[in-house]
Amino acid sequence: MRAWRVEERFGLDGLRLVELPDPTPGPGELLLRVRAVSLNYRDLMMVEGRYNPRQRLPLVPCSDGAGEVVAVGEGVAGWRVGDRACPIFAPGWLAGAPDRERLRATLGGPLDGTLRELMTVPAESVVRAPSHLDDVEAATLPCAAVTAWSALVRQGAVRAGQSVLVLGTGGVALFALQIARLHGARVLVTSSSDEKLARARALGAAEGINYRDEPAWGKRARELAGEGVDHVVEVGGAGTLAQSMRAARPGGTIHLIGVLASGEAPLSIVPVFMSQLRVQGVLVGPRDAFEELVAAFELHAVRPVVDRVFAFEEAPAAFARLAAGAHFGKVCVRVG
Amino acid sequence: MRAWRVEERFGLDGLRLVELPDPTPGPGELLLRVRAVSLNYRDLMMVEGRYNPRQRLPLVPCSDGAGEVVAVGEGVAGWRVGDRACPIFAPGWLAGAPDRERLRATLGGPLDGTLRELMTVPAESVVRAPSHLDDVEAATLPCAAVTAWSALVRQGAVRAGQSVLVLGTGGVALFALQIARLHGARVLVTSSSDEKLARARALGAAEGINYRDEPAWGKRARELAGEGVDHVVEVGGAGTLAQSMRAARPGGTIHLIGVLASGEAPLSIVPVFMSQLRVQGVLVGPRDAFEELVAAFELHAVRPVVDRVFAFEEAPAAFARLAAGAHFGKVCVRVG
Amino acid sequence: MRAWRVEERFGLDGLRLVELPDPTPGPGELLLRVRAVSLNYRDLMMVEGRYNPRQRLPLVPCSDGAGEVVAVGEGVAGWRVGDRACPIFAPGWLAGAPDRERLRATLGGPLDGTLRELMTVPAESVVRAPSHLDDVEAATLPCAAVTAWSALVRQGAVRAGQSVLVLGTGGVALFALQIARLHGARVLVTSSSDEKLARARALGAAEGINYRDEPAWGKRARELAGEGVDHVVEVGGAGTLAQSMRAARPGGTIHLIGVLASGEAPLSIVPVFMSQLRVQGVLVGPRDAFEELVAAFELHAVRPVVDRVFAFEEAPAAFARLAAGAHFGKVCVRVG
Amino acid sequence: MRAWRVEERFGLDGLRLVELPDPTPGPGELLLRVRAVSLNYRDLMMVEGRYNPRQRLPLVPCSDGAGEVVAVGEGVAGWRVGDRACPIFAPGWLAGAPDRERLRATLGGPLDGTLRELMTVPAESVVRAPSHLDDVEAATLPCAAVTAWSALVRQGAVRAGQSVLVLGTGGVALFALQIARLHGARVLVTSSSDEKLARARALGAAEGINYRDEPAWGKRARELAGEGVDHVVEVGGAGTLAQSMRAARPGGTIHLIGVLASGEAPLSIVPVFMSQLRVQGVLVGPRDAFEELVAAFELHAVRPVVDRVFAFEEAPAAFARLAAGAHFGKVCVRVG
Repeated sequence: MRAWRVEERFGLDGLRLVELPDPTPGPGELLLRVRAVSLNYRDLMMVEGRYNPRQRLPLVPCSDGAGEVVAVGEGVAGWRVGDRACPIFAPGWLAGAPDRERLRATLGGPLDGTLRELMTVPAESVVRAPSHLDDVEAATLPCAAVTAWSALVRQGAVRAGQSVLVLGTGGVALFALQIARLHGARVLVTSSSDEKLARARALGAAEGINYRDEPAWGKRARELAGEGVDHVVEVGGAGTLAQSMRAARPGGTIHLIGVLASGEAPLSIVPVFMSQLRVQGVLVGPRDAFEELVAAFELHAVRPVVDRVFAFEEAPAAFARLAAGAHFGKVCVRVG
Repeated sequence: MRAWRVEERFGLDGLRLVELPDPTPGPGELLLRVRAVSLNYRDLMMVEGRYNPRQRLPLVPCSDGAGEVVAVGEGVAGWRVGDRACPIFAPGWLAGAPDRERLRATLGGPLDGTLRELMTVPAESVVRAPSHLDDVEAATLPCAAVTAWSALVRQGAVRAGQSVLVLGTGGVALFALQIARLHGARVLVTSSSDEKLARARALGAAEGINYRDEPAWGKRARELAGEGVDHVVEVGGAGTLAQSMRAARPGGTIHLIGVLASGEAPLSIVPVFMSQLRVQGVLVGPRDAFEELVAAFELHAVRPVVDRVFAFEEAPAAFARLAAGAHFGKVCVRVG
Repeated sequence: MRAWRVEERFGLDGLRLVELPDPTPGPGELLLRVRAVSLNYRDLMMVEGRYNPRQRLPLVPCSDGAGEVVAVGEGVAGWRVGDRACPIFAPGWLAGAPDRERLRATLGGPLDGTLRELMTVPAESVVRAPSHLDDVEAATLPCAAVTAWSALVRQGAVRAGQSVLVLGTGGVALFALQIARLHGARVLVTSSSDEKLARARALGAAEGINYRDEPAWGKRARELAGEGVDHVVEVGGAGTLAQSMRAARPGGTIHLIGVLASGEAPLSIVPVFMSQLRVQGVLVGPRDAFEELVAAFELHAVRPVVDRVFAFEEAPAAFARLAAGAHFGKVCVRVG
Repeated sequence: MRAWRVEERFGLDGLRLVELPDPTPGPGELLLRVRAVSLNYRDLMMVEGRYNPRQRLPLVPCSDGAGEVVAVGEGVAGWRVGDRACPIFAPGWLAGAPDRERLRATLGGPLDGTLRELMTVPAESVVRAPSHLDDVEAATLPCAAVTAWSALVRQGAVRAGQSVLVLGTGGVALFALQIARLHGARVLVTSSSDEKLARARALGAAEGINYRDEPAWGKRARELAGEGVDHVVEVGGAGTLAQSMRAARPGGTIHLIGVLASGEAPLSIVPVFMSQLRVQGVLVGPRDAFEELVAAFELHAVRPVVDRVFAFEEAPAAFARLAAGAHFGKVCVRVG
């Protein structure tokens, strides 16, 4: 089988399309023929060596994908050849709180990821792909959509009538928009592009804020929401956190997701206790959060927003598209 | 009646002992003869003009106190002359989530506070003083103890077998120690003084970490707690937050309370989402949190740790004691 | 002013239209000109003397209503003559957990209720009427809608993709349907009338079960929901509880609301622990739950389902309509 | 190896000590040499054929036990020969909400249980035995203690100052007493024996109520707790539930555990919604609840209360002891 790997050195130009032996499933495992992969910003950082300085090479990148079961290992019940499945981000994290061990063993680094034609996965660590989605759409869910679900639904218990500020129009951001809308919340979106804001409104956002026109977008969001927003889906990182705090209502939550800005930033923590804010880190989530998401998306036939689909051979171009930052929704790769 | 007030300019030397007309309770109000007051770091900052640049003068400082009901306004049920009561920090915040209006109208700034002989309070905004405590002890509860309770019990749901890292040995810190112990948690305390650590151990702390001997105290706390601590009671602010994050286990909570370091600090937010941390701001809490605390303290006859009691006339010396930072527990003033 | 009162003996024929002195608002109170009232089954039981055997007479019945502020008492901020407001069911229960005192002092028994032309209320115990609703529609909210909100949103944290079984098509039931739909849940409704089921489907129900055709409707609901439903909105009481338990999934919640069947019933509790069910009693809720509801209903322009509106003079006929059980949605009375 | 089995017909006299082939661990499994077993009332009902009419025979009874790892299957990490472990009640239920499949596959019926010399278990479905407990003590934990933990800590979030009413002095009841005390709650216990009440007080109960002397023990408990108790640990079932409801405060929780009275009982549900009670079924809990319990018990060196220990050959006498109802704490069997 073929796989993309970062072979000897980090960087997009370190990606190589290599031929590897076909894997076989051990006891309790499934063999998946990967059909599609979706890119996250974390994958880009991983390839460039910026995510984890201790990551070893070679590495098959990417953690989001969808595939077809082509072989079933010994002792596996409930799965058959031909079933469509998505591997979960942190194999073995099925439910409950995370522990260090789980959070350290994730697809696309340090473990080999989804950007290959065949992969084995523990049967307990996959989720049935939603029936209403094609392979590319299903491939967008395991990290990006589950992260938005964990934040807003599990940790935030978002409810109808609340307001949610979503930063930007990337993958997690648009899933957050869709999930907030499913629960009857009012969504505000920021972007530097009026055209992207128009597309976000078409997806159900109530308000768009162009942060080039409104440098004080945090204050603006707060005003638009009366006392401030109930939730901020913060994917920007250190550079935007101060304004996100300004946008939040007393007792509001800032869901901290982003890896866009990994550096340090001068930060005043006074607003956190003065307004009793919650800053809640989110790192994807366990299998049962994914299953909840699938049930909701199937019921409402929610379709992920796919920005562009690249052929397997063009995977480096997909990373470049993500790096350029001009995308709206998910950048994907069709595999097999 | 007499009152201490910041009269014309901020600063400890701006405090004046003044004579004011005796207040009378309106409908729905109680008149309290203040018996004792307890100081918080916020009070010191308020007097020095560092807490809120827009605070108007004159201002009677302090938000913690206990008194005796000496008159009952029209329409008040359930209170009688002679009852002992503590006013709550944010009058009108009885239960539920805070709103901006409540958080902006708090005792000791912007509203006149407790450092006076007589004060009127809405009857709904006081709590019965615990029967086992004297006036000075009861005066320590409204902010410092309620803050620790809101953090660990209400927002943290601390439980037996968890580990709690408490920074320092000030008022909130020692209440956090006592409250964590009441719930069966294991408590780690930091201090720069071995003698204070010994006293903290006598109060039930399992471990003391002298941060002068252990500059990497965050890492040390994490090791002492296996996977990391479940809760950090963070009163230090920007200067200690990075180490607090290091101490926390994945999914752990950092209860952010402090006003010691109000400045900005370079902060890396990566650990927040990498370890799925919760950074939870705490600003005291509503009346019903205070009532829960009183029930628990009465049941277990918990006594606050009083550092030193000053006479009413010596109030500025009490502030100076707090400013010096050598205290262990609460600095108090006896009023009437 | 005029008022309907149960004068000397219980029963619909004990209702009298009487002339009473106009009330005036005390300090902290508002005077409302009641514009519309909505009936709950509890009101009927109260009038018939079946709700509380110790209820004293005379009694102005009804707890749901909407009115206009016509006078503002001393010391009241935030309200002006002309504002439209709904009194809350349990005056003084603003937020947090209920206590016995609050639950014992509720409108329409033991306290005089809303079925009169003028009433005084504590300013803290009213909620602004939603701007998109007329007086009759607003009058349906304080008990029926807040009960459904407290159950599904506050205690149940209903989320998208979950399934909710709603018993019947009365007031609480249809609000539960609307609220569940706002949060993206799938709703199943029971009724004995295919025509009512068709109307429930028009309001967004996914499935209707005619319990005359399907005596084992609990089992049917469970099958329709796969593993069983996540929530049952149980308004039928003892007669239906066994089937509600059969409908629920392991770990599911039965929100127990009904007073339709106040008698005892033979009940097997084995399913409660075998399936780890939660049976959660709901008695309306505090003011802040009402405010959350108003925000959600305004955002989505949700309109209550009004069955029929009677003139003030016809109030007994309104009670008779409710007693007959043929209504769909709320039975209302226009007052002034 | 030897095992006790219900061979051909239900009943204590259907128990046979049989010789079976030694099992060998498959991939992912551990082989345990069972050292001790503890009996639950469910085990007795199972043996007598009263728990599940469709249970097939033969059946090795009992779900609580502790053993030593004597062989480690292929692919198992983290366990070594000589480690001491307790199997969990519902293999595969590791965290999160239960599902039907998990709740249907439990030890001691329908699956073979712990009353045998050797057993294989999935490595993921065991928990390390607390280091401070001997084998017999460790054997009491998996059902009885985890049930009390799930109820009070996980579902009830019991906190200091709350009151907990515990019915009786059986296994779950005494664990509930110990766990409530660990969290600073005040415990009331009922019994028909003054001697048992004295022993409960020695374990930390604040009040004992002899229900022979106080037939209205529910009302008595409510008075002793002011507004009523916050939690009832209800193990009695239908016969006691009405009084448990009377004991509870508004908003209180009745943790429904018991299988003592599996029959139906006439039950009035009015108090459930009038006092906004929660009746919460509890069926043991997942592995991570067990792990939390172990951490708490180790920290505080909590020792289970062992009523009597029988030799393996005397297992039927142990069942008879349990059936007689005179025990205080856990009835155990030493195995190897």
